[in-house]
Amino acid sequence: MQIQLDLPSDLCHFAPKRGVNGVLQQRKRKSPNSAFAADLLAKAQPLTEAVDPFSCVAEELELVEENLTRSVRSAEQTLTDIASHLICGGGKRIRPMVTLLAFKAFGGKKVEDIVDIATAIELIHTATLLHDDIIDGAETRRGKESAYRKFGLKATLVAGDFLFIKAFEFAGKFDETIVQWTADACTRLTEGEILQGFFNRNTEVTVGDYLEIVKRKTASLFQTGAKIGVYLAGASPSLVEEMDQYGLTLGIAFQIIDDVLDVIGHKELLGKPTGMDLRDGNPSLPIILALNAGQQAVAEAFECSHPTDEKIRQAIEAFGQGTAIQQAKALSRTYAEQAFNPVKKLPPSLYRNGLKTLIQLIIERNS
Amino acid sequence: MQIQLDLPSDLCHFAPKRGVNGVLQQRKRKSPNSAFAADLLAKAQPLTEAVDPFSCVAEELELVEENLTRSVRSAEQTLTDIASHLICGGGKRIRPMVTLLAFKAFGGKKVEDIVDIATAIELIHTATLLHDDIIDGAETRRGKESAYRKFGLKATLVAGDFLFIKAFEFAGKFDETIVQWTADACTRLTEGEILQGFFNRNTEVTVGDYLEIVKRKTASLFQTGAKIGVYLAGASPSLVEEMDQYGLTLGIAFQIIDDVLDVIGHKELLGKPTGMDLRDGNPSLPIILALNAGQQAVAEAFECSHPTDEKIRQAIEAFGQGTAIQQAKALSRTYAEQAFNPVKKLPPSLYRNGLKTLIQLIIERNS
Repeated sequence: MQIQLDLPSDLCHFAPKRGVNGVLQQRKRKSPNSAFAADLLAKAQPLTEAVDPFSCVAEELELVEENLTRSVRSAEQTLTDIASHLICGGGKRIRPMVTLLAFKAFGGKKVEDIVDIATAIELIHTATLLHDDIIDGAETRRGKESAYRKFGLKATLVAGDFLFIKAFEFAGKFDETIVQWTADACTRLTEGEILQGFFNRNTEVTVGDYLEIVKRKTASLFQTGAKIGVYLAGASPSLVEEMDQYGLTLGIAFQIIDDVLDVIGHKELLGKPTGMDLRDGNPSLPIILALNAGQQAVAEAFECSHPTDEKIRQAIEAFGQGTAIQQAKALSRTYAEQAFNPVKKLPPSLYRNGLKTLIQLIIERNS
Repeated sequence: MQIQLDLPSDLCHFAPKRGVNGVLQQRKRKSPNSAFAADLLAKAQPLTEAVDPFSCVAEELELVEENLTRSVRSAEQTLTDIASHLICGGGKRIRPMVTLLAFKAFGGKKVEDIVDIATAIELIHTATLLHDDIIDGAETRRGKESAYRKFGLKATLVAGDFLFIKAFEFAGKFDETIVQWTADACTRLTEGEILQGFFNRNTEVTVGDYLEIVKRKTASLFQTGAKIGVYLAGASPSLVEEMDQYGLTLGIAFQIIDDVLDVIGHKELLGKPTGMDLRDGNPSLPIILALNAGQQAVAEAFECSHPTDEKIRQAIEAFGQGTAIQQAKALSRTYAEQAFNPVKKLPPSLYRNGLKTLIQLIIERNS
């Protein structure tokens, strides 16, 4: 695969500003990097090859992994067991990866800081997965029995709280700006969850409602991770804002593909059965688009509080006859293209290419 | 009621130390108070009357209340409704009160800091109540329908997360020491919940197990609130440790009385029916002591997964024939006496008397 990179025409916005330095001085933990633009330019190589975003930050991801493994240790074995069940159960670590790549692409150096906030973001994500499985009554997660199914509601609920607290331990080390952004992301997550619940099995749901849910429930952690990465690298507020948009649009594209895979994916690759959104009554984008197109089989499965396997099968078959999947994929590509824009403005580096390749990997993935 | 106060024989430990100042300098928010010992002595009046601990810190509690009201506002009305249902539903605010009194008794001045952490502690407490009601399937809380019953499991679970996040927003403003202490308290809460679950309807439970549960599940927030209050007032590490013990022993005494009231209290005053620990299979101290004394009716109600009203009535009657309640009250007095020790070492002040009276109010309460 070949990637065309546009060299940045103007790098003046990389110069550290008085305002930014002011902010940096307030931090408990900070990674100001006054000369990073020049440094980046000096090291920049014209990269034309796609790079594996995982390998770009493999060392840092290993540190996140160590943090995660340490975090799940509790005096109560049950908490350790439940937290490990999910944390050590093969997550993609995409949110920490976005955070790390954004930090490195903007010349961030002090790895211990970014690793801690990347850990916090993954812990928040995992905590919400535990609580989501309770809410959806999920039987499987990441290819195995869900914690909710294996350990029961009560212990899984407490283990979710436990992981939120561990996230707080990591994120609480940072300055008020980062604490506030992280808390805001978490607040949006809860609001997204409530909004999704409101539209559960509700055929009145629109694409606009869907985007509101997804922005809050999925994109907020991508967005906040990217933003914090850039902020900790010492970039200007306008660049922080641009990378916030990268995270937002990447997160939306990611969720749309998740929704599409729930219809057309393979159980073995996904680690969960397909048709889960129909079973749970969650308003996914393909479902909404199929409802808009008047696909009766989809409406019947979506509205039914306990749809039979046959109803689900008929609905999945109906998707094959309509254009909802194609439309959803097209919308995910639109968001992916928007995610490219801020990356194009970066000086060439391995990490910039990692951020670009990540977009492609996300929209082309099959699991 | 007359209270005997012992004037402190030695106040040298109030002088700020190099180590403490070192810590203070790391804080994002700090309230060092270099001359507070002299100031306290100058203002000290020999108080011999009991004082209402609520009125001692009424202004600060009002600020906590304002913070709490602001915190529950969300873009999603359901979250606001659930959070308000409990937050504005008549809690005693004992944990913030302990935090505020400890701060003021040690000469703390910068009220906005202590108010924020006192708010965080009450938010954590409320979040755990929402999740506890799910775990216990509670029908009532604070004299009205529980949020779980009124709004359902899913929304209540998310609202609990929402309040945890709001607590994080408040606590995350402080330095690493406070963040770590708060996170540790929360971790102990979750561990206490798991331990309590392990001993649910389990007649093997001992008084030692009970104390382990209570130290973690109830006392940890009293303890951390008291400790942070003193720390933010700028006291020495040894005084912080002493007030940690105040919170710990007060918290244990508080929980024992809660357990006793669950057997002998009045439904109207408690805001919930009596006998809930027997119904839920929670190992309360009176239940454990009655089990130790071989009280069959108590054992039968405790072990039974769905005890009938008649079984509960018989068990409650059995308590009247044994000494479990008296023994439990005696143990709560022992812990209350231990709570007095650190308070005695304080210089005389309104707040010292507030801390003392609070102990008495807690062990003499009927709701």
